[in-house]
Amino acid sequence: MNLRTTPASVAFALSALISFASVARPEAIAGRLASTDDYFSQLDRRSVTPDVNAQLAYMTYTDFISPLYSRGCDFEAWQPRGMPNRILKYSLAWYAYGLASVAVIDPKLQRFAGHGIDVATAKMRCKEVWGDWADDKFGTDPIKKDNIMYKGHLNMMYGLYQLVTGDKLYEAENIRLSKIIYGEIKASPYAGIVCEPDNYFPQCNSVGYLSLWVYDRLHGTNYRSVTKAWLQFLEKELIDPKTGAMYVTYHPRSKTVKPWESAYTTAWALTMIHGMDRSFAEKYYPNFKQTFVEVYDHGTKARVRETTNTTDADGGAGVASTFALLLSREMGDKQLFDQLLNHLEPPAQPYINSGILHYKKPSNLLFDELLFISKVHVGFGTLLTASLPGVPRVSVAKK
Amino acid sequence: MNLRTTPASVAFALSALISFASVARPEAIAGRLASTDDYFSQLDRRSVTPDVNAQLAYMTYTDFISPLYSRGCDFEAWQPRGMPNRILKYSLAWYAYGLASVAVIDPKLQRFAGHGIDVATAKMRCKEVWGDWADDKFGTDPIKKDNIMYKGHLNMMYGLYQLVTGDKLYEAENIRLSKIIYGEIKASPYAGIVCEPDNYFPQCNSVGYLSLWVYDRLHGTNYRSVTKAWLQFLEKELIDPKTGAMYVTYHPRSKTVKPWESAYTTAWALTMIHGMDRSFAEKYYPNFKQTFVEVYDHGTKARVRETTNTTDADGGAGVASTFALLLSREMGDKQLFDQLLNHLEPPAQPYINSGILHYKKPSNLLFDELLFISKVHVGFGTLLTASLPGVPRVSVAKK
Amino acid sequence: MNLRTTPASVAFALSALISFASVARPEAIAGRLASTDDYFSQLDRRSVTPDVNAQLAYMTYTDFISPLYSRGCDFEAWQPRGMPNRILKYSLAWYAYGLASVAVIDPKLQRFAGHGIDVATAKMRCKEVWGDWADDKFGTDPIKKDNIMYKGHLNMMYGLYQLVTGDKLYEAENIRLSKIIYGEIKASPYAGIVCEPDNYFPQCNSVGYLSLWVYDRLHGTNYRSVTKAWLQFLEKELIDPKTGAMYVTYHPRSKTVKPWESAYTTAWALTMIHGMDRSFAEKYYPNFKQTFVEVYDHGTKARVRETTNTTDADGGAGVASTFALLLSREMGDKQLFDQLLNHLEPPAQPYINSGILHYKKPSNLLFDELLFISKVHVGFGTLLTASLPGVPRVSVAKK
Amino acid sequence: MNLRTTPASVAFALSALISFASVARPEAIAGRLASTDDYFSQLDRRSVTPDVNAQLAYMTYTDFISPLYSRGCDFEAWQPRGMPNRILKYSLAWYAYGLASVAVIDPKLQRFAGHGIDVATAKMRCKEVWGDWADDKFGTDPIKKDNIMYKGHLNMMYGLYQLVTGDKLYEAENIRLSKIIYGEIKASPYAGIVCEPDNYFPQCNSVGYLSLWVYDRLHGTNYRSVTKAWLQFLEKELIDPKTGAMYVTYHPRSKTVKPWESAYTTAWALTMIHGMDRSFAEKYYPNFKQTFVEVYDHGTKARVRETTNTTDADGGAGVASTFALLLSREMGDKQLFDQLLNHLEPPAQPYINSGILHYKKPSNLLFDELLFISKVHVGFGTLLTASLPGVPRVSVAKK
Amino acid sequence: MNLRTTPASVAFALSALISFASVARPEAIAGRLASTDDYFSQLDRRSVTPDVNAQLAYMTYTDFISPLYSRGCDFEAWQPRGMPNRILKYSLAWYAYGLASVAVIDPKLQRFAGHGIDVATAKMRCKEVWGDWADDKFGTDPIKKDNIMYKGHLNMMYGLYQLVTGDKLYEAENIRLSKIIYGEIKASPYAGIVCEPDNYFPQCNSVGYLSLWVYDRLHGTNYRSVTKAWLQFLEKELIDPKTGAMYVTYHPRSKTVKPWESAYTTAWALTMIHGMDRSFAEKYYPNFKQTFVEVYDHGTKARVRETTNTTDADGGAGVASTFALLLSREMGDKQLFDQLLNHLEPPAQPYINSGILHYKKPSNLLFDELLFISKVHVGFGTLLTASLPGVPRVSVAKK
Repeated sequence: MNLRTTPASVAFALSALISFASVARPEAIAGRLASTDDYFSQLDRRSVTPDVNAQLAYMTYTDFISPLYSRGCDFEAWQPRGMPNRILKYSLAWYAYGLASVAVIDPKLQRFAGHGIDVATAKMRCKEVWGDWADDKFGTDPIKKDNIMYKGHLNMMYGLYQLVTGDKLYEAENIRLSKIIYGEIKASPYAGIVCEPDNYFPQCNSVGYLSLWVYDRLHGTNYRSVTKAWLQFLEKELIDPKTGAMYVTYHPRSKTVKPWESAYTTAWALTMIHGMDRSFAEKYYPNFKQTFVEVYDHGTKARVRETTNTTDADGGAGVASTFALLLSREMGDKQLFDQLLNHLEPPAQPYINSGILHYKKPSNLLFDELLFISKVHVGFGTLLTASLPGVPRVSVAKK
Repeated sequence: MNLRTTPASVAFALSALISFASVARPEAIAGRLASTDDYFSQLDRRSVTPDVNAQLAYMTYTDFISPLYSRGCDFEAWQPRGMPNRILKYSLAWYAYGLASVAVIDPKLQRFAGHGIDVATAKMRCKEVWGDWADDKFGTDPIKKDNIMYKGHLNMMYGLYQLVTGDKLYEAENIRLSKIIYGEIKASPYAGIVCEPDNYFPQCNSVGYLSLWVYDRLHGTNYRSVTKAWLQFLEKELIDPKTGAMYVTYHPRSKTVKPWESAYTTAWALTMIHGMDRSFAEKYYPNFKQTFVEVYDHGTKARVRETTNTTDADGGAGVASTFALLLSREMGDKQLFDQLLNHLEPPAQPYINSGILHYKKPSNLLFDELLFISKVHVGFGTLLTASLPGVPRVSVAKK
Repeated sequence: MNLRTTPASVAFALSALISFASVARPEAIAGRLASTDDYFSQLDRRSVTPDVNAQLAYMTYTDFISPLYSRGCDFEAWQPRGMPNRILKYSLAWYAYGLASVAVIDPKLQRFAGHGIDVATAKMRCKEVWGDWADDKFGTDPIKKDNIMYKGHLNMMYGLYQLVTGDKLYEAENIRLSKIIYGEIKASPYAGIVCEPDNYFPQCNSVGYLSLWVYDRLHGTNYRSVTKAWLQFLEKELIDPKTGAMYVTYHPRSKTVKPWESAYTTAWALTMIHGMDRSFAEKYYPNFKQTFVEVYDHGTKARVRETTNTTDADGGAGVASTFALLLSREMGDKQLFDQLLNHLEPPAQPYINSGILHYKKPSNLLFDELLFISKVHVGFGTLLTASLPGVPRVSVAKK
Repeated sequence: MNLRTTPASVAFALSALISFASVARPEAIAGRLASTDDYFSQLDRRSVTPDVNAQLAYMTYTDFISPLYSRGCDFEAWQPRGMPNRILKYSLAWYAYGLASVAVIDPKLQRFAGHGIDVATAKMRCKEVWGDWADDKFGTDPIKKDNIMYKGHLNMMYGLYQLVTGDKLYEAENIRLSKIIYGEIKASPYAGIVCEPDNYFPQCNSVGYLSLWVYDRLHGTNYRSVTKAWLQFLEKELIDPKTGAMYVTYHPRSKTVKPWESAYTTAWALTMIHGMDRSFAEKYYPNFKQTFVEVYDHGTKARVRETTNTTDADGGAGVASTFALLLSREMGDKQLFDQLLNHLEPPAQPYINSGILHYKKPSNLLFDELLFISKVHVGFGTLLTASLPGVPRVSVAKK
Repeated sequence: MNLRTTPASVAFALSALISFASVARPEAIAGRLASTDDYFSQLDRRSVTPDVNAQLAYMTYTDFISPLYSRGCDFEAWQPRGMPNRILKYSLAWYAYGLASVAVIDPKLQRFAGHGIDVATAKMRCKEVWGDWADDKFGTDPIKKDNIMYKGHLNMMYGLYQLVTGDKLYEAENIRLSKIIYGEIKASPYAGIVCEPDNYFPQCNSVGYLSLWVYDRLHGTNYRSVTKAWLQFLEKELIDPKTGAMYVTYHPRSKTVKPWESAYTTAWALTMIHGMDRSFAEKYYPNFKQTFVEVYDHGTKARVRETTNTTDADGGAGVASTFALLLSREMGDKQLFDQLLNHLEPPAQPYINSGILHYKKPSNLLFDELLFISKVHVGFGTLLTASLPGVPRVSVAKK
């Protein structure tokens, strides 16, 4: 229950923060909660950092007001952030993907993480989350056709839940939805599935394809065989070889692309593609950095331009640096991760009160979600090969 | 009727307060309304303190705007406090539990207290109170399955009403609901009943179990026999022996606990458990104090941390000190009660106008309810053994 | 029509007020609109005072925005006062009761007053007025059972309309409702009818009983015979002989009273009882004054405490002084009437603009209504025996 | 289309105003837009003044935001003025009556004026305009019975449209409604028709009766024969011979009048009566002026008291001076017209931008409508005898 | 996705702007984004200017918040501009017409532009866009009769989409709607189709007629043959030869015109007429300029009066200068285009952030749309004769 009638004392919070920081590594700049080394060594240490623990507390600890408090269709926890309903799907998904890494890092937290993915998945099915599809007059069934921006995440969450827990709660739905996705991909004249009708996004497709890899891991199938054609399609139609970046959207009816490249699109998509095809992501990563990343403050910080031909960082959707942080983590690029987190975290004014992490001034709506996953992310490749309760005993590979 | 168009005069209020305080014990610190001795001696004196009387006036006296003014489904009395509908159930319940102690303290107030419990119980059945269950899409019947956070209190109120009054108004419902609760407990693979699906809380279960003890007292049954297995379950799964504290939630599907301890959870649950099993509560109480309570201001005051590994008091739900106050009262710990009330009451700026107590700055949504019950609480054990109109003439024990 | 886009000029208003005051009695204190003598001599003079005339203008004169402008279910006239719908019934009733006295005072205004009662009665039947009964989930028929707080006034208004006008517009409804009220009283195990289920108030019953006296006056019946048992019940259960005051509420199910006395309750009830049994009211009036009234400012003013054991005036519902003003008028107590009006009226900042009286800062929601009736009230006894158009030609007494 | 995102430049506006004023007559006081001579000579000049032209532009010129832009049920044009829906009927009617005079003044504007009346009439039939009848729970058909405040204007507009244009668009409705009005008048035990049940107003009846004169002019009927009895009724019941003023309301059920006279009521009613019976209006006009009009500022200005026994101008509904302006125009009283317009117009801060007249601070909701008609009004008598396209070729008088 | 929680940095924006400006032509005044030469030479260069590219980014680039982001019925992108729903049709249409020119200018953007027209057209069919027709109570089918203000644009968009893309997605609807429009025109007793019943606007008809020319270009039909009679009607009824301007509205029922000329009406209509009949537009253009355009600031800027007899620029709907800008572009009048853009653009405070153009203070609701099309407009004549994918292979002219 959140029963406080007054905001938590900031005075307390700051002192807590300071004492925390002093416990952390001395080299961290002010406003950073742990060192980059700490984050990257979590898997080895089988333990998350204290700030990640405090972020897990934010996500799940406090009755009624933690986002993942209950499986019910209540979304008041997102209201203080001013979250529009149509963004909820992304919030739930990225929390869930981060939780999957937590399950891999710390066996003691595995069941807890699985529970959190379950709650996120249950909420994902609420009308509040997928109602934009109906509101926009695209139909009443959000998974039957198109809408990969929703059903890709949903399928990924179904699969990750089973992978992390071994629980077959969502298996029937995961089977049904994977068949739908696989079927649409096979029938597609291009490669993949649109979000809204005639709007095709690389990043949303990266979720859909990756969800098939997770599915294959659980069921020994080979749905992931469609990946190669997809990556060829991306290279042919949506990637600018000069910059290593993806164009923002493809429109199948007119076979045209929107003539702007998008750093956040690229960062998101490459992160997931790296879990499916390491060399593909490695091929474009250097150019991506070259094109979009701007290192500043004597090399201590870095920010990311959303598109080409601009000097502005984090324009457009405002998430270029944030998704680049996740990509740097996926790529194991500690230097860029450190620079980006130095750019992102201190201005957001994090504080920890009663063991709970809050960002007072997050710079975008998915800030909390993406800093969380970026800090704990073990890599999608590692996730797919990890020994987790949901992996069938008879090795899938041998089938 | 509240017909005033202007707020009650503060000037009047303060002078009233000052004169009141000077009538009270000289040792009380400013802002305290009666001494700890006064509260603890109410049962002996067969009389409540003047401030408790003024709180009863707040609860029931003024037409239309007292919370317990009428049995109707009107909840405007809670609006000035900004109470969300889903918190109403707790407000009604704690008022009712305090009223049961008032009935024990002062025989002259017994019928009045019984009436107050009746009103609270009638309001508890309004859709406004239990509608969160439907809003969250868990179903349309709030007592059929799960939802112990609601039906535990409802059953307790049914029983207490009959115990305090002898009136069988709610007996049929009490029988039906006790059977539901007992049945779910017996069928449970763990021990107890969840609130929301897959969310299990010790404190809410403590209400459910205690409601069976009240039921047994009325009907000579032995539903309370399930208690032992429950306490064993708590010790095995949800209590950290080092701290004497309970973890915040258990999730049955994944057999996992949320990895944070909660002081308010523990205080609430131990308070009720103490009415069922004194030794169990006594076993954990010292560690609880050691872990969470911070005495300050030269020993005159105490505040409570909501969780471990923090220096912040009253974090999270913001009610740790408030529930600890109730626990200290249940445990007969006058010193801690005094320290906590010194911490809580003066900053809330109590004032009494026209015989009615108001807190101008309550620190949480259940502040009024919990200070009320803490001041009058005779202990759940005493409540269960008290000679009250509802106790059957043929001794239950002999059956 | 109220078509002004700007508030009426205060400058004009004040000058109007000053010139008016100088026309009035010199002894009146500033802010009083007429002397007490003027009010008490209206019946003799067969003429209301100018300020009463201005209050009648407020009530009825201006199209669309006077409360009694039309019989339609429009209640925008009450919006500037912030009147909750559930208070409308009291506003309409007290206006109507005052209008009945206006009809007695000035024969030239008799038909006008009757029309005003008609409008109030028609509005009383709008859903907006009685909808609280349904909102609180007590049922859909507001007169079938209980709810004397509504149907007492409605029946009184039915009867007074016929008494003042001779018009049988509401006679059938008045017969039906009087039978319901009489029947419920006869069947009652205590004496009277509750407002909300299990909430019994002396004042609301005083309306219900008085409505039977009015009915008897019209129909030569003897429904008023139930009054005696009621007054005995009040004396036995609800009056504190020490203070002459009534307890605030009786709860039939538990046969208990709320342990607080209420000055406004007492003042209202004694006012109406005085119309039925002069000696009963006279018996308690001195103690009532002794207990609740505080004379101040060298005897020029008086204010009223809402309950005992307090020094605060007008606490709780905020209407103790206002209802005491009406009682003082009913009792013919000119001194107290004068003192109370000196306390009440000047701070309310009355002003008269274009012949219309407004109170800028009324201290409660029924301020306008109660000052109006208090100024014109001829006494309920006088009202019941007055020669009015509705009195049957064959004397009722002889039947 | 109003597509501006910023308010029109006041700087521009003022300069436009000043240059305009300097073009106008030098004797006009600041803030007046044309001289009284200019207004009174419009019929002779067969041309409206520039400010009237600018007011016509306000009413009709700008797409979407002019009140008479379209026949559709859109009323956003009234929103900036805060117009309640129940006042819309008056706004539409007075605009239409003024347009009829414009049609008489300038033959070139005749078809344009007819179109404007058509739009106003079409809007008059929208639920938004007559919905108060249903909201107040008087019924669902706004013309079947009573409600002369609506159907009088509607019938007048039907008739004027045909008179001005010769177009029989509304003829069938005009025939039906005239029969209803005539039938109700003939069957009335008093003389005329109520607005709301039991609320009878002289001014609203003056519209109803005048609508029959317009009808007779079109159809050669003699419905206007009922007028004489009506005027006798007014003289007998509703006119105070001393003051020449009408009482505000008559209530047929109780055969009573509200005991206040109303200047705006009188001014409106006499204006229309003057079109039917010149001598009747001339008989009361001097007393009306004597009673209500206050000349000030060395005779340059005049304001009007709404009722007797007051020194306040424009009280109550706030439209006494405004309707008196119209009456003075009807009576050909140039001096009073000039004085009243000097009182009304400059404080309303008129400005003309891009040929469109706006009043920044109108003193009442019908200010724009009534200044418009007052400026152009040729007199209802002139209107009824004018040679207009709707007048039948065979002279009605000979039938 | 727009996920930013803070507005884009203005500091960044200004520096971006400045550097951009310095790259552009030196002669451009501050606040202009490109030189007039640059805009006029786009077709020759086969490339749009950088600021047009940035405006295309505004329209389409950013997920969820670009107006043309998706075909769904979501219109949140217009909310920050405070766009009423009834203006949406114009916004979508002018974006679409500008995109058609982009397709002609740059073959590389042809498919992208076609896609944008498709999205605009799909949105055009949402209830949100045409619902004003139903709200105003004109009917439930927005294309069956009248409403040329909607269906003219819709038909033009159907046709332009096919012309630009060759895709027959909307062909069936285009055929059906062209037949409706052609049929209504042929049956019309005047020439053309009204918007709202009895409200006829030249500019909305210009869209309807031009849509038939586009249709003819696609289908080899000769629906455009009705144009001549229409232009004759305009000259006879709606054009003032002295000023070269059109009156604002024609009302067929009364065969009258509103007696005000409208510069924006004229500019819009002449622009489209110029695509159908060059000499007609050329005939009136000089007078239009003479009448409405005011050159100021030593010839560097020009603004446009909305009507005659006024010195105020951009009054009424506030779009006179903006539509005149488009007309000047259509007429190839570089000097006036330059002057008007100097007047319009700098005060609107354009800034480019992350490659996206925003106007901070647009002076009207269609500012963005109209500056966009004015900058890229190749002329409707050029559009109609351009070699585009939708032009049938067998020459239409030969049929």
